[in-house]
Amino acid sequence: MAGLAKAALAGDVRAAAQLMRDLDDRQPGALQELRELYPATGRAYVLGVTGNPGTGKSTVVDWLIERYRRQGQRVGVVAIDPTSPFSGGAILGDRIRMQRHSTDDGVFIRSLATRGHLGGLSRSTHDVVTVLDAMGNDVVIIETVGVGQDEVEVVAAAHTSIVITVPGLGDEVQAIKAGILEIADILVVNKAERDGADRTVRDLQGMLELRPREAPTVEVLRTVATRGEGIDELCAAIERHHAGVGAAQAAARRRQRAFAEVRDALRERLLEAAAAAAGPGGLEAIAAEVAARRTDPYSAAERLLAALRGTDPPRGAGGC
Amino acid sequence: MAGLAKAALAGDVRAAAQLMRDLDDRQPGALQELRELYPATGRAYVLGVTGNPGTGKSTVVDWLIERYRRQGQRVGVVAIDPTSPFSGGAILGDRIRMQRHSTDDGVFIRSLATRGHLGGLSRSTHDVVTVLDAMGNDVVIIETVGVGQDEVEVVAAAHTSIVITVPGLGDEVQAIKAGILEIADILVVNKAERDGADRTVRDLQGMLELRPREAPTVEVLRTVATRGEGIDELCAAIERHHAGVGAAQAAARRRQRAFAEVRDALRERLLEAAAAAAGPGGLEAIAAEVAARRTDPYSAAERLLAALRGTDPPRGAGGC
Repeated sequence: MAGLAKAALAGDVRAAAQLMRDLDDRQPGALQELRELYPATGRAYVLGVTGNPGTGKSTVVDWLIERYRRQGQRVGVVAIDPTSPFSGGAILGDRIRMQRHSTDDGVFIRSLATRGHLGGLSRSTHDVVTVLDAMGNDVVIIETVGVGQDEVEVVAAAHTSIVITVPGLGDEVQAIKAGILEIADILVVNKAERDGADRTVRDLQGMLELRPREAPTVEVLRTVATRGEGIDELCAAIERHHAGVGAAQAAARRRQRAFAEVRDALRERLLEAAAAAAGPGGLEAIAAEVAARRTDPYSAAERLLAALRGTDPPRGAGGC
Repeated sequence: MAGLAKAALAGDVRAAAQLMRDLDDRQPGALQELRELYPATGRAYVLGVTGNPGTGKSTVVDWLIERYRRQGQRVGVVAIDPTSPFSGGAILGDRIRMQRHSTDDGVFIRSLATRGHLGGLSRSTHDVVTVLDAMGNDVVIIETVGVGQDEVEVVAAAHTSIVITVPGLGDEVQAIKAGILEIADILVVNKAERDGADRTVRDLQGMLELRPREAPTVEVLRTVATRGEGIDELCAAIERHHAGVGAAQAAARRRQRAFAEVRDALRERLLEAAAAAAGPGGLEAIAAEVAARRTDPYSAAERLLAALRGTDPPRGAGGC
């Protein structure tokens, strides 16, 4: 385990992959390795890509990888599949893509599914982005189905957020767009050869016009990703967004990302500490009391907080 | 504020609605009210309904409400829309349904969108379920787009979990189904009049057959909810699932729900306490240090945990 960070910084892809697995498995020692990587981070351009299942976002991401590779840029991808809380399996499409790019040293794809950790998927996502960034990838793409709160936040904190939709998924999608509009820097209507594409574009533009006058520009683009149509325009829109972001806005997103990283690291660490302070049986024993209605969840939380505070602080532990 | 719990227990719907709002707004005092409700909970049958946007799950839920009402049962619904982390707005379909059931005292519908609380949407969901249960609703339906980790967990912990899909959403959906299969007690192929319904049913049954021999039975049903087709069969399947769950399995789900409640209450409470212990500027000040790469998120988390432990425990506070 020791030395994985150094090896990853030196460009050892297998060491980086091992470190990601160790982090995901919460192996002892992996966090210390990650800390060594942290000073080397902050250089990658982070793209967030989200969209419902069936919108073809993997195909769009594939094209983005191809364009960045043509420019000689190194690309890291983290694909988030939060629908499998128990299996921890990789997603189907990802395996296919791994094969397609398997001969290209300039592309590194890692898929994440939660394994029921207390801290959850967003911490694992931060970890993978940190490793991909420190490895020297120029661009890191975060791809997610993104209708869960954590996933939406991850995409919202990217340098550029792309939301992909398709024509005619019904009224429910219309309602969802209202929420997704708030995080999109660029809106893509994929499968634009289908009936209803014009209307979807008009609807989106209409919703954008309802925003406050000072709201930043959001471009609405059409793509037919299966045929590569509209990809040049998408790349140009990303470039325009990148160039148009002021220093203040860039700093605000950097702080937003850092806040999410601290919060998610803290969330997991605090729960671990509370579980340890809970005594024999841990949180499960307390949950059994709640299930039996002998206490309520909020009283239980107060008791655990008090127990945590009563615990002696560890000697010589901690990172500072 | 005082007395809302008592009023809600006595059947005052407006008091219950006010308490839900106060809880969602994290009003001081609201938690104490909730604690008073807790002993009156545990009697409602909790149904979880999840499916991607556009699968028509709201229409299915509407039919379930109608059938339960026909039996004279009181129904509470919590509709979760996690896609709007910033607006906090109610979802469109919900407003429409509110009107439809607005003259029926036996139906109470509440929609939830996250407002960026540290603890997140799942805690708010637990709170609403607690109030709906304590109010004396016989059935509580949790409806969510459910591809985020927290939302999936909420549905998985219900007495009966229904996963709704539609024919032919492509390969990505196939991959997702593999995850969703693990939480479904009943699988519904809605819009079954469409091409490809047979194949979707066969695919789902095929995937179910791959599970271990001892895995519980999962029925696959077809509905055309817009025409009310297949709803009787769905109700019968819910009844069969309900009747077939053994005492051990029911107790396990109860503990699973209680564990999630404790964890989510704790998650929020611990983050609040850590933010208070962080000193001036709170978590934001520490995030700024991380953004400037002066520290890393994990070292920051350790520092905050140490600060939290160093804090004197509150005198006379806590619920036990």
